[in-house]
Amino acid sequence: MPRSIYLDHASSMPLRPAARAAMLEALDAVGDPHRPHRDGREARRLLERARERVAAVLAAQPEEIVFTSGGTESVGLALLGAARANRDGGTRAVTTAVEHASVLGAGQRLRDDGFEVAEVGVDEHGRADLDRFLAEVSRPGTILASVQHANNEVGTMQPLAEAARLARQHGALIHTDACQTTGRLPVDVGALGVDLLSLSGHKFGGPPGAGALYVRRGVDLAPVLGGDDRERGLRPGRENLPAIVGMAAALEAAAAELAEEAGRLWALTDRLRAGLEERVEGVQVHGHPTQRVPHIVCWSVLGLDAEPLLMALDERGFRLDAGSTCTGEAQEPSHVLAAMGRVTTGSLRASVGPGNTEADVDALLEALPEVVGGLRQVASTTAKTNGDGG
Amino acid sequence: MPRSIYLDHASSMPLRPAARAAMLEALDAVGDPHRPHRDGREARRLLERARERVAAVLAAQPEEIVFTSGGTESVGLALLGAARANRDGGTRAVTTAVEHASVLGAGQRLRDDGFEVAEVGVDEHGRADLDRFLAEVSRPGTILASVQHANNEVGTMQPLAEAARLARQHGALIHTDACQTTGRLPVDVGALGVDLLSLSGHKFGGPPGAGALYVRRGVDLAPVLGGDDRERGLRPGRENLPAIVGMAAALEAAAAELAEEAGRLWALTDRLRAGLEERVEGVQVHGHPTQRVPHIVCWSVLGLDAEPLLMALDERGFRLDAGSTCTGEAQEPSHVLAAMGRVTTGSLRASVGPGNTEADVDALLEALPEVVGGLRQVASTTAKTNGDGG
Repeated sequence: MPRSIYLDHASSMPLRPAARAAMLEALDAVGDPHRPHRDGREARRLLERARERVAAVLAAQPEEIVFTSGGTESVGLALLGAARANRDGGTRAVTTAVEHASVLGAGQRLRDDGFEVAEVGVDEHGRADLDRFLAEVSRPGTILASVQHANNEVGTMQPLAEAARLARQHGALIHTDACQTTGRLPVDVGALGVDLLSLSGHKFGGPPGAGALYVRRGVDLAPVLGGDDRERGLRPGRENLPAIVGMAAALEAAAAELAEEAGRLWALTDRLRAGLEERVEGVQVHGHPTQRVPHIVCWSVLGLDAEPLLMALDERGFRLDAGSTCTGEAQEPSHVLAAMGRVTTGSLRASVGPGNTEADVDALLEALPEVVGGLRQVASTTAKTNGDGG
Repeated sequence: MPRSIYLDHASSMPLRPAARAAMLEALDAVGDPHRPHRDGREARRLLERARERVAAVLAAQPEEIVFTSGGTESVGLALLGAARANRDGGTRAVTTAVEHASVLGAGQRLRDDGFEVAEVGVDEHGRADLDRFLAEVSRPGTILASVQHANNEVGTMQPLAEAARLARQHGALIHTDACQTTGRLPVDVGALGVDLLSLSGHKFGGPPGAGALYVRRGVDLAPVLGGDDRERGLRPGRENLPAIVGMAAALEAAAAELAEEAGRLWALTDRLRAGLEERVEGVQVHGHPTQRVPHIVCWSVLGLDAEPLLMALDERGFRLDAGSTCTGEAQEPSHVLAAMGRVTTGSLRASVGPGNTEADVDALLEALPEVVGGLRQVASTTAKTNGDGG
């Protein structure tokens, strides 16, 4: 069997063994956690135990954790729910120009509902401009801000704690999309000073289908859908118990190894960043060199599109993603790179995880110059042929 | 170990072996179905295969199936999405007085958004009044109707095909909540004549966390949350692949045994209905005697609350639900029984499934008179004691 080197952990991490074991146990829990019988109570016990485990990692209280079907739903509930519940205070929201598609989508829904949503720009590394943020968040009628903890394309960390302080000083609720950081870096809701925090289970080795929203005690939220009083009336519908307990187990496992693993992954991505600049002609590495998550490297190769590069790497066993991602079908120009003032097409993203080693990085660094060279040769031959025939 | 007889299949059915096997396979599919590499394509293949399987059972086209996190989300997307996309045609919707909490919740959200939502009454068996339905659906500005396929509390089947015909004749979209019927009775979207149909995986032996919405080709829908173009742009966020393939496998398995199993369950619930009326003093069995789903029996015992009955039965190993259900924490008076003109508190629901036999029904019929007698004695003693002391 040909080798396969998975370098797309920012999209989805393989299921952790602890998560798998927890899921298998919960698959046999037949009861609905809200039913008045023994099987229901047993399911409820598993559900609440998972809530305690997730809360403990975030330094939150269990009753501040709302389970959802994933990061996108958490973000939507946070933004639409906070806007609906606090609309009496105003109809302005502030976010950044480099947010994840889920935040962009929720922002569009807010605009549909009559909100003004300001987007704060970023510097060349993708860091949000705090002066602009302050200017926007201090404008009257601003009830809500959303600032990602780290960018999902280029890996840049945002000045979140500072932004949160500014937002709260001016009476706006502050939400953060922490889908790329939870389980990979310390995420302490008190230290960050956020009111709302979204996380996604499959990003840190839980199964897809579960996420959570931290809702600071006292923060008013309205449900997006109605229907029942599950999850404190904020998220109706049967709880996805297997995925939720899998997520909790994965988060606990990730947190336990975080200190060591973050350092290891940082070393791998440092190695990749340095190697790219050293060995790939015309490479441009994106994102902040030091204020960044441990696992993401994003780059462009000048003059080459992402798709043929990804295809050629995939054939050689490397599973990478395009830099402009998470919008589903289409590879569109990156709004993140555009906001950073960079070339917006052709970027690639490698993201490492528990299974990766230096050998994986070195293999990629060996393959990439060959692949780039081959594609450049094809491009040049095509140009010549066209020139000859023209 | 004491015996345990699970009679709450209308809340949640134990995971079918075929579903479990499919889930375990998908847990190892690490890729995001929308990523441009081999692992992504493999996940995509599993996702689209599941879509074909679900579509085949409903006699729909694969592109008409949108995967969601469950029945409540499907219902919300159907109603809020159709209302938002078709608002130019009017702001009236029609439903029945006995819909599931998810439909009630969506209806409340529609009202918040300025819609008028009319609720059509039912007869003593819980069947919707088609004359009233026609009167409502023919009123100008009515763009949407939602009529359950069968009631989740009392099991009564609605005259859905007739309602659908009337709705479409008057230019309204027709949605049905088919969460209690899919996998238990033939559900053919063409024969029913519906535009939108919601189903829930864990109701027919799939895992919790997956549902689907059938969206007839040509029907305009807007997403509830925004963010990406997954699921035809109607449902953003990472697909819950393990639960989706589990649901598809469960639905296929349920459909394959449906003809035989529906008859078997009908016989069990007929036996239970007859036995209740014969053996339990003061019993009132709810729901239509013949126009009903195979698996549900709902009844009240005059003068007794549901909670002590359920507790006493649970102690003897019987896992039943209260009749008024699906609203989460609280056992509230049943809006379904109220609409039927019945006593609204104290109802119990037994719902049978693949694992149940005549022996289970007989055991319940043996235990129930004892339990009822015991509780009546306590009630009478308490009354006397209070009387003596008063």
